[in-house]
Amino acid sequence: MNRPLALDRIRVVLSRTSHPGNIGAAARAMKTMGLSQLWLVAPESFPDPVAEARASGADDILAAAKVVGRLSDALVGTVFAAAVTARRRELSMPRRHAREAAVEIVDRCRDGEVALVFGNETNGLTNEEVGLCSLPVTIPTNPDFSSLNLGAAVQLLCYEVRMAALQPPPPDDVRPEFATHEQFEGFIAHLERAVTASGFHDPANPKRLLPRMRRMFNRIRLEKEEVAILRGMLTTFEHHKRR
Amino acid sequence: MNRPLALDRIRVVLSRTSHPGNIGAAARAMKTMGLSQLWLVAPESFPDPVAEARASGADDILAAAKVVGRLSDALVGTVFAAAVTARRRELSMPRRHAREAAVEIVDRCRDGEVALVFGNETNGLTNEEVGLCSLPVTIPTNPDFSSLNLGAAVQLLCYEVRMAALQPPPPDDVRPEFATHEQFEGFIAHLERAVTASGFHDPANPKRLLPRMRRMFNRIRLEKEEVAILRGMLTTFEHHKRR
Repeated sequence: MNRPLALDRIRVVLSRTSHPGNIGAAARAMKTMGLSQLWLVAPESFPDPVAEARASGADDILAAAKVVGRLSDALVGTVFAAAVTARRRELSMPRRHAREAAVEIVDRCRDGEVALVFGNETNGLTNEEVGLCSLPVTIPTNPDFSSLNLGAAVQLLCYEVRMAALQPPPPDDVRPEFATHEQFEGFIAHLERAVTASGFHDPANPKRLLPRMRRMFNRIRLEKEEVAILRGMLTTFEHHKRR
Repeated sequence: MNRPLALDRIRVVLSRTSHPGNIGAAARAMKTMGLSQLWLVAPESFPDPVAEARASGADDILAAAKVVGRLSDALVGTVFAAAVTARRRELSMPRRHAREAAVEIVDRCRDGEVALVFGNETNGLTNEEVGLCSLPVTIPTNPDFSSLNLGAAVQLLCYEVRMAALQPPPPDDVRPEFATHEQFEGFIAHLERAVTASGFHDPANPKRLLPRMRRMFNRIRLEKEEVAILRGMLTTFEHHKRR
């Protein structure tokens, strides 16, 4: 399915969030990645001006957020739910890393609504909550410090989902005009004349200078304009020499 | 190189940060992904209790943070710098998406220290700051709402870098020794002197010459030896001129 449709079908579900600032941060994170459906399960404080301040521009998402009493209420109508969790569970359900899970999440959007479920800041999700979900998902972190902020976890998952939903086009479509083979060779010949005249290069004892310069300029594809500038420079160097 | 070593060589550089809370959030984000070197360029307020509160457990990173006056000071000793930027620049330097850039960033850690550079919350990086870096990097966002929080941008880049560092490295070949930031800047300054003296460049009417040359040589990724050769050439051009 296409990108906007997939992202429109993903609910971000925050369960028992303590700090309203994190709800605002989650809304902002969602919106930067093109998600819009926010569900709040028994938030400690919502609505709250702190959430609005942190949302900075994603107030539409807060305004449309649905508040429910239990996680099962937020999962009504979904076909798939990913539980974002840091801890290994006794349940030993097979976990997935975020990147791999994102591909599956986007794929499941073809069947209907999908949920990304995040637990309380201090205690995460309960085993019962994880049990309501289809797949535990974990974000790879430093094993010595895995304390991801809730807003940051939402940001990372939404980013992975966006990346999976859209193979992004390259950021630049402006294609420079590259130099032709002859223009490149013309420049190298000009360089050789200039460094020979300046005394830097001795044709009788050439060493590796010109092959090195070829190798260096060949590492990139010189643009037409760059060749023109470089040759302009060489001409002024030659010209001054003759005075 | 192996994973922990790569992450140890990456500096997160925050330029002219307005809100100390974002510095704390960045420290926490870094630590969750196993990065530790934080550099602050002219922060509005640091140290600050708000930063410490938001770091929640990453205080060691704040305590070790280096504060400098200008971006160039934070790049001393680096071999590569990625400028995280949302805006398209007039220079139209080729940008990379974060995921692709992360592979290159981790790869460049084999040559030395590498910087991830983030600008001010409101205005981002200046063109001059981007010009000091090797590669502009962009995080794919919703085109209608690209307002990523600074801490969130740091989180995403550090995550991508960690994911790239965990991948097995490519089979190794001969690695040339690349020029450091200072060597690169020394060459650009020398080039400027030479083209000014030759009359090709008019400092009173600079046009886009030096930014274009920076952009071109940044694409090439100069090796130490190449810088030495190029400067040798410039010296003979300057010398001949004076006769």
